[in-house]
Amino acid sequence: MSIVVMKFGGSSVADADKIRAAARRAIAAHEKGQQVAMVVSAMGDTTDDLEKLAYQVAANPDKREWDQLMVTGEQVTISLMAMALRDLGVPAISFTADQIGMVTDGVHTKARLLRINARRIRRELDEGKIVIIAGFQGVTANGDMTTLGRGGSNVTLVAIAAALKAQQCENYTDVDGVYTADPRIVPTARKLASISYDEMLELASLGANVLHNRAVEFAKKYRVPIHVRNSQNENQGTLIVAETAAMENIVVRGAALKDKLARITLRHLPDRPGVVARIFHVIAEADIVVDDILQTVNPAGRATVSFTIDLRELNDALTVCERLKNDFTDLEISHVTDLAKVSVVGVGMRVHTGVAERMFKALADAKINIENITTSEIKISCIIDREQGPEALRLVHDAFDLGTGPLKETRKRGKKRAGRASK
Amino acid sequence: MSIVVMKFGGSSVADADKIRAAARRAIAAHEKGQQVAMVVSAMGDTTDDLEKLAYQVAANPDKREWDQLMVTGEQVTISLMAMALRDLGVPAISFTADQIGMVTDGVHTKARLLRINARRIRRELDEGKIVIIAGFQGVTANGDMTTLGRGGSNVTLVAIAAALKAQQCENYTDVDGVYTADPRIVPTARKLASISYDEMLELASLGANVLHNRAVEFAKKYRVPIHVRNSQNENQGTLIVAETAAMENIVVRGAALKDKLARITLRHLPDRPGVVARIFHVIAEADIVVDDILQTVNPAGRATVSFTIDLRELNDALTVCERLKNDFTDLEISHVTDLAKVSVVGVGMRVHTGVAERMFKALADAKINIENITTSEIKISCIIDREQGPEALRLVHDAFDLGTGPLKETRKRGKKRAGRASK
Repeated sequence: MSIVVMKFGGSSVADADKIRAAARRAIAAHEKGQQVAMVVSAMGDTTDDLEKLAYQVAANPDKREWDQLMVTGEQVTISLMAMALRDLGVPAISFTADQIGMVTDGVHTKARLLRINARRIRRELDEGKIVIIAGFQGVTANGDMTTLGRGGSNVTLVAIAAALKAQQCENYTDVDGVYTADPRIVPTARKLASISYDEMLELASLGANVLHNRAVEFAKKYRVPIHVRNSQNENQGTLIVAETAAMENIVVRGAALKDKLARITLRHLPDRPGVVARIFHVIAEADIVVDDILQTVNPAGRATVSFTIDLRELNDALTVCERLKNDFTDLEISHVTDLAKVSVVGVGMRVHTGVAERMFKALADAKINIENITTSEIKISCIIDREQGPEALRLVHDAFDLGTGPLKETRKRGKKRAGRASK
Repeated sequence: MSIVVMKFGGSSVADADKIRAAARRAIAAHEKGQQVAMVVSAMGDTTDDLEKLAYQVAANPDKREWDQLMVTGEQVTISLMAMALRDLGVPAISFTADQIGMVTDGVHTKARLLRINARRIRRELDEGKIVIIAGFQGVTANGDMTTLGRGGSNVTLVAIAAALKAQQCENYTDVDGVYTADPRIVPTARKLASISYDEMLELASLGANVLHNRAVEFAKKYRVPIHVRNSQNENQGTLIVAETAAMENIVVRGAALKDKLARITLRHLPDRPGVVARIFHVIAEADIVVDDILQTVNPAGRATVSFTIDLRELNDALTVCERLKNDFTDLEISHVTDLAKVSVVGVGMRVHTGVAERMFKALADAKINIENITTSEIKISCIIDREQGPEALRLVHDAFDLGTGPLKETRKRGKKRAGRASK
């Protein structure tokens, strides 16, 4: 019998009506003869409310107790969802992570899944019940509650789908799927029919706020295809799938803009091994996430290191860098705010040439200055002035025909290299 | 090492400030060198809010899921309490019922405790931690969440105190203790220094809203003395303890008023075995709680049965009684609303005579008509007109010198029968 696992995020279960709507969607699949498991998040702002409470009682809440508190959010939703389903006439049962043995390590607030016992879920599915599972949470072998960190509910979705060997894994959100670019900035942006795990990983870390990387990595590892779709309509969404050869026919799958970046530059560093390691060790210890790093060596044998970070972390980062003056006496620190990063992503870049050139030309024609460039096998990023970010995104989107070209790769197996954009 | 178990009800943990106040009280005991376990309820209106949510998604919420939902209320409080304690510098750890093996039967919404595993609690106490336990909840051997029904948090308190063989069991509420009568009605009412389990049981079922009977029965069974006291001050409260011989020196310990009663009378019933059983079987099946029952047989060999119930259940009860006409063709049903019940309670009644007479005279002198009388070994109740309820309570309270007489029994062992009020 075919198994579908559906995940409903916080905005899709924000109130009683939405819970009942989600329940009806699960029932529709159940009525088609499918076995249905649901993964649900905490309702709307519940997690924020719980966080506020925690900071009201303690300046620095204990992490074990933080998780013990947070897991209640999802527990409320699972029980309400089961009640709603039963009220609509379908047998249903809810489970916390603990009740189905969703075992994690003991790293509170960002635990990693170790194993899932799918037996109990299977038994209930075989009895015809819709099974509702609390997302985002786990339990240690010791019985302590844990949470899986940002994007944790999607990790649960993928893990449950993998454990059940589900035929379908559906992630219901408040958008129609993954777009060629953010439609709020690029009016011609279109929904993608499919995207590879690696492309999704790049887009997510470049600013596309659809699925958190940990969930995608997990899906890639277990080869679980994720269908991202809208809980408010019946439209086909976007399939996040393993890469196929045909996917390389499309040069660029999507474009993304990361806004509100700052760049810190450290000058007059000694050019010897270990210097860069020391710098980024100190920054990582302060929990500051570094975006891109550039290093140059000038003639005098002194190195210059630049790195971009989220603007909100600038002050913390500068404080940390000041401390480096104890290690490097000549160190000069400067910074630039108001930067943005525009990127294009596509597995087609591996086989098509001229991609970087096309991107740079589109920006140059509009007199947009490129401050830094970073690349990976399947993406090119340009750091630009923040004010020009939205325009740059639209230009790049146009330059690669993302608003007009084919959305689905044509099956030209064996010929793909012939289609190379050798311009 | 001396162990104290403290329970804080919903109003004593209603917000962050109150949680921190409760935490400080636990710390004060901890600093005296005691081992401290806390049992806490859901914050303020949390349970009501969860109930509302349940009824928004389902007309008749499933009971397993109801419990799965409700237990989150206490789980929020335990984790916040542990955070607050740690923030105040004292090691602490919180446990759900599941985490400490508080095993119940599977009767959802009113489960009965089967066993507690005190080992984990003891280990944490021995490490110097304050241990916080979620009240009101349990878990089945199967891992399903359960709740213990009304007064459930106090059942948890007593059960934990019994399992730990605690020297002290403190129930923190928003009143100073158990009073000779409700001080909102009787201005001269005074706080009792102590009261026996049986007296407390009678008073609770007669309308005194301090401790639910199940908790008191549990305390009596395991001989756990409960100290009822105010979380807002340091006053000595009331000890609920096993009966001592000296307790019989006080004739009446307290008086209570149960308001908003209705009486249903069934006439022309056949006077044969099984009739009354049939009637109350039907009423019990409808979950209607019957207060007092009176039966008389008139000369024609027809029986009359009267019973009092909570006014709010009158309509349901009348509907059920109508159905009895199928069994008893001549049945005549009538009812009276606007009744109240005034009662006096005291183990001293066992050895002192004239108690009923003194009560009846106090009411008669004020021209208060007594509609029915019911008695037990340690209480006398009179059904009266509802409007006269508060006055009746004050009169009876005065008649037994509850506002002026000794609050603590004098130790006149062996002589107590000599002090009999033979008036």
